Amino acid sequence: MFPIRYRASFKTGDPHNNRFKLEKVKVVSYGIGVIGRRLANHILTKKGVEIVGAVDINPEIVGKDLGEVLGWERLGVVISDDADRMISETGPDVVLHTTMSYLRQTYGQFVQILGHGVNCISTCEELSYPYATEEGAEYAAKLDALAKEKGATLLGTGINPGFLMDTLPITLTGVCTEVDRIYVTRQMDAATRRIPFQKKIGAGLTVEEFRRKIENHEITGHVGLEQSIKMIADALGWELDEIRVDPVEPVVLDRDVASDAIKVSKGYNAGSKQKAYGVRGGEAVITLDFRAYIGAPEEYDSVVIDGVPPINQRISPCVHGDYGTIAITANMIPHVINAEPGFKTMKDLPVPHATPEHMRRYVK
Amino acid sequence: MFPIRYRASFKTGDPHNNRFKLEKVKVVSYGIGVIGRRLANHILTKKGVEIVGAVDINPEIVGKDLGEVLGWERLGVVISDDADRMISETGPDVVLHTTMSYLRQTYGQFVQILGHGVNCISTCEELSYPYATEEGAEYAAKLDALAKEKGATLLGTGINPGFLMDTLPITLTGVCTEVDRIYVTRQMDAATRRIPFQKKIGAGLTVEEFRRKIENHEITGHVGLEQSIKMIADALGWELDEIRVDPVEPVVLDRDVASDAIKVSKGYNAGSKQKAYGVRGGEAVITLDFRAYIGAPEEYDSVVIDGVPPINQRISPCVHGDYGTIAITANMIPHVINAEPGFKTMKDLPVPHATPEHMRRYVK
Repeated sequence: MFPIRYRASFKTGDPHNNRFKLEKVKVVSYGIGVIGRRLANHILTKKGVEIVGAVDINPEIVGKDLGEVLGWERLGVVISDDADRMISETGPDVVLHTTMSYLRQTYGQFVQILGHGVNCISTCEELSYPYATEEGAEYAAKLDALAKEKGATLLGTGINPGFLMDTLPITLTGVCTEVDRIYVTRQMDAATRRIPFQKKIGAGLTVEEFRRKIENHEITGHVGLEQSIKMIADALGWELDEIRVDPVEPVVLDRDVASDAIKVSKGYNAGSKQKAYGVRGGEAVITLDFRAYIGAPEEYDSVVIDGVPPINQRISPCVHGDYGTIAITANMIPHVINAEPGFKTMKDLPVPHATPEHMRRYVK
Repeated sequence: MFPIRYRASFKTGDPHNNRFKLEKVKVVSYGIGVIGRRLANHILTKKGVEIVGAVDINPEIVGKDLGEVLGWERLGVVISDDADRMISETGPDVVLHTTMSYLRQTYGQFVQILGHGVNCISTCEELSYPYATEEGAEYAAKLDALAKEKGATLLGTGINPGFLMDTLPITLTGVCTEVDRIYVTRQMDAATRRIPFQKKIGAGLTVEEFRRKIENHEITGHVGLEQSIKMIADALGWELDEIRVDPVEPVVLDRDVASDAIKVSKGYNAGSKQKAYGVRGGEAVITLDFRAYIGAPEEYDSVVIDGVPPINQRISPCVHGDYGTIAITANMIPHVINAEPGFKTMKDLPVPHATPEHMRRYVK
């Protein structure tokens, strides 16, 4: 069928891929909320990984079997609120952690996990690049020291922060001899997302209601813009004067739009948008532009690098955030197991990749 | 001007970026051909890197000052054909190697460089992923052993192979929970490229002349398709049945097209195209589609991943190959210096990034 110029025998090859051990990688799921459940569901479908323990503090699910909570059959994994006991009894290769967004909330949990000398991958947004703030940098230094002392690796990741607005733009600068400015956009049509997300961005509210909910912190912006900017700047060695984050803004369209769940009349709020800037010499050298609203004309993730050569990259439609986050969290398991001990960020580890085969295949 | 929610002091931060040493990174340029000259020109414009030596066997330039050969002022770097002596006398941090495409041509040169315990980054296409062939895998094993023995790191890279058709698609699979098929396209309008490139792809020839030059090996296909396919497959843990490479094909258009240098009448050859396939279970799970011709309607690099979530990514216009190759070769300098000893490929090292500041800033 094909004219064959070359036909290889693959008995040799990358030696790492030939050390195919059969033991499954053992995982503890720490956090059985929305993302934790999706992640656990995904892990249960993967080859060469098994969930040996589950931790959450929600009294409605503590003591229940994880499989039943997920809507599967019983797994023999009872959700516990005692993380220390769960980790020491199950001896996992890695903890997948999906509880909260800020280090002031999660720091103690990481201390607990690392204290057992166990690797951890977390979707905690601030952990994706804690160096964006002095407080975060202090947490990171302490976690790095503890991880090294205990021989474990800690990574913060996710689709955003963690990939689309930091790791991917950084990677694309790798083919540039010069970089003047980077502009990253994520535009989502909220109508394609779950209803809680549509409500979270204030779709269907009046602009006045939207602004009141912003003031009351009932609606919050995207968490991670500062972290993504600081990760890009540090990767490029740029010393920023400051990181500026605009307030979350309403999106008001000149036409009626609707999702299956929410109607947004002309003049009402269709969603939210927010920009953040890495400023150097008075100029925004890094701009992140995040938009999620019902009726967005196109869904895309784009990276525009004003440099040599110029780079104009677009992923269209945009990467679905829920799938993307659970994917990259699971896919980083082998890189974290293979890494030297310490606290790592996405820019410290080898390029991410999918892990469709037995997870041990990717472990050195 | 901006509403400021957050203003950081960056006295703390990623500790690696604060160890700012002033010594320049010392480079030997090995290979002063077309790419070697462009690369040397680029290095001369960069902060924190200096060229301390230059090696080539071309009798027309041996003994001449590198700066004069490049059209700059004298640099005090005399091009030598004695690589051993040049490396031992100059003690570089890294050799940038740009001589030939195949390991049977370059293997001895790498043995020589690594023998001095010196790091090396090469644009040798086969080195980007030698595991694509048994012969290449044997070279790689020997080079890896030698590099480890001597405490040096060796990397093969480039824009393609090395990034656009391997590292970048691999990186994008990182956000996928499932990957069924990967299709990568690079389409270039040869009219925008240098004239030797236009001639190299046979633009303006009759189809008969084109086919004769293919048979005579006066026109060759893109080097690196097998390497890129094997790198993707190994990253994903896919065991391929085989890698199939189509012959190089002419591109005949139904209209007249022209570059500044070459007119291509309707029915004549406008350039070349070639596809290669990673086959698994009888199906092409990886397809690389390379097209370069005068009159291409659009220039782009695209990655389409048939998976969950599906990824439809495009860089438009395509990344300029000459800039891209010298950029990524220079940008990988700190990763190679920081890496543990051994032979590495792009999938083993941290994500690439631009290096616009003093090169030492990126060295741990």
